[in-house]
Amino acid sequence: MAIGLNFRYAALGCCLLTSMAMGQDSLLDDAKSLFGPIPNVPVLDGNPATSAKVELGKMLFFELRLSESHNISCNTCHHIGLGGADGRPTSIGHNWQHGGRNAPTVLNSVFNIAQFWDGRAADLTEQAGGPIASPIEMGSTPEHAVEQLKGIPGYVEAFRKAFPDEIDPLDFVNLKKAIAVFEATLTTPDGPFDTYLKGDEKALTKEEKKGLRLFIDKGCSSCHNGINVGGGMYAAFGAVEKPGADFLPPDDEGRKRVTGQMDDQYVFKVPSLRNVELTAPYFHSGRAWDLDEAVAVMGTAQLGIRLAPEEVSSIVAFLRTLTGDQPQVTYPTLPPSVATTPRPTP
Amino acid sequence: MAIGLNFRYAALGCCLLTSMAMGQDSLLDDAKSLFGPIPNVPVLDGNPATSAKVELGKMLFFELRLSESHNISCNTCHHIGLGGADGRPTSIGHNWQHGGRNAPTVLNSVFNIAQFWDGRAADLTEQAGGPIASPIEMGSTPEHAVEQLKGIPGYVEAFRKAFPDEIDPLDFVNLKKAIAVFEATLTTPDGPFDTYLKGDEKALTKEEKKGLRLFIDKGCSSCHNGINVGGGMYAAFGAVEKPGADFLPPDDEGRKRVTGQMDDQYVFKVPSLRNVELTAPYFHSGRAWDLDEAVAVMGTAQLGIRLAPEEVSSIVAFLRTLTGDQPQVTYPTLPPSVATTPRPTP
Repeated sequence: MAIGLNFRYAALGCCLLTSMAMGQDSLLDDAKSLFGPIPNVPVLDGNPATSAKVELGKMLFFELRLSESHNISCNTCHHIGLGGADGRPTSIGHNWQHGGRNAPTVLNSVFNIAQFWDGRAADLTEQAGGPIASPIEMGSTPEHAVEQLKGIPGYVEAFRKAFPDEIDPLDFVNLKKAIAVFEATLTTPDGPFDTYLKGDEKALTKEEKKGLRLFIDKGCSSCHNGINVGGGMYAAFGAVEKPGADFLPPDDEGRKRVTGQMDDQYVFKVPSLRNVELTAPYFHSGRAWDLDEAVAVMGTAQLGIRLAPEEVSSIVAFLRTLTGDQPQVTYPTLPPSVATTPRPTP
Repeated sequence: MAIGLNFRYAALGCCLLTSMAMGQDSLLDDAKSLFGPIPNVPVLDGNPATSAKVELGKMLFFELRLSESHNISCNTCHHIGLGGADGRPTSIGHNWQHGGRNAPTVLNSVFNIAQFWDGRAADLTEQAGGPIASPIEMGSTPEHAVEQLKGIPGYVEAFRKAFPDEIDPLDFVNLKKAIAVFEATLTTPDGPFDTYLKGDEKALTKEEKKGLRLFIDKGCSSCHNGINVGGGMYAAFGAVEKPGADFLPPDDEGRKRVTGQMDDQYVFKVPSLRNVELTAPYFHSGRAWDLDEAVAVMGTAQLGIRLAPEEVSSIVAFLRTLTGDQPQVTYPTLPPSVATTPRPTP
């Protein structure tokens, strides 16, 4: 169900009220009530992180041999050095096939309500298996992925260490769990906005605060809120006014494909705006290259307002304060194949 | 010119003599006379390494936007986590085109006499530009690569820091120089064989020493010698007996394509055997998946001898001592694109 609009008006009303009652000084309080700084890495339900499991998950995240061609890893599309995305409209997968939607960032994805643009995976664990088994992404299958890793002695040992209580730990469930615990470490704390939310009012410039005020008062924060400044709900793209077919291709009906419900047509998970300056191009279609343009389109499509250029600039200045410390990842040394290891497709 | 054979017999005679005269105890001396431990990172001629230049080179090594599709980086084929290669027969490049030869490892490549299988690049600097501009690899051009980086403000700044004395430092020559200084840091010191060469005779097991003895006495070390246990000369593949067309496809004439000389037909640079257990499949054709098989083929093709299975096993045991400490690389955070940055091909 598309709950974006209802939420939007509720939040908008609330914010305007607060803002009117308390004046500009209340900006920090307003922000605190709507957003949260990036917390410590959360513990995943039923999947506690150990150093062995995180290390295994990191290996798997960079593991080309999980793809049928041995040419594509998680990091291919969720590139840790590029804000956790790949900077393309849609990603290139097996046999140079193109994905249907822009690769969402893996950074801070643990804080999202669900995974994929349409929320079809409940969490990171469920998500991790999707691209491996997608014919247009990594082109493998769960069975073959397990067979592949079982053919690499170093992985047999690494799964044993990561799941020490299990007799036969190298299976697809544990593969996904390990990737998920690693991905949960890929957070970007301590950006200027986090410092601000923690009470340091000097962490944002006057211009950035103006942008934050607009972001709240214009209604952006009715969908883009919470820890991830987004990622917490679903909304129809074009709730007020449909953008052009380049941004909203008519054949991708979004969450309707997941729920089968007509009112989920063109509904997508509201993306996180954390590190948004690093992850152009924007929208599920990946067709907006300019953050200013993306903000303006959101104004007309979601809020029915035409933001003035200087308003857009201020909002973008605020959005840049959402860039946090990028994860420091030491590249893993992957266990070598042996003569009997399953081989890639030509 | 194919100098492999002459070298081989000269070295073989010399080693047998030494071995006969001094017995098994002379193994370390023999080894010291033929090989060298991996030294400190060398200084490249006319290209001194500074931390700013190495850091820039690392960014460029992982930079997808150097490819036309923004989907392929140096690390795609020279994967730091997979022994500096990609574990495929030949690599997959632009538009899923397949390369002509197996991707050689980038690790320790600074110690090679020249770069590429046919030595057509004199050094790492010259090599670095090749794949970027190859239509079947990264699919870009020198001009576009520079235009691309000039469109990313963070690179303009990073080149300025790396080449502080230049007025307009962001050009293709400096791009290649920066990649080269980073690649020169990708060495793998302190493997068991290095420890042995430094005088610790306990660093190799009895079986590994037996393999080393065989490696020298059978003649392997006549081509595979020096710091890189290879990488220092050219030799005809099939000098004594041509292997099958699967290992030596007749249409790839090797170094003849570079020099135009008939006696360079099927001549290739002798590959380094450093970390060889990490870099299957083997040969320029990338068709030998089993290190034992590769050693046996070398015996018949290069030396005209049929190694007994237990001899092959001992030699492979020795070869595994060539695996050194893999480079510890912190994944670089790449500077973000902006609205005006050149975009990838669809």
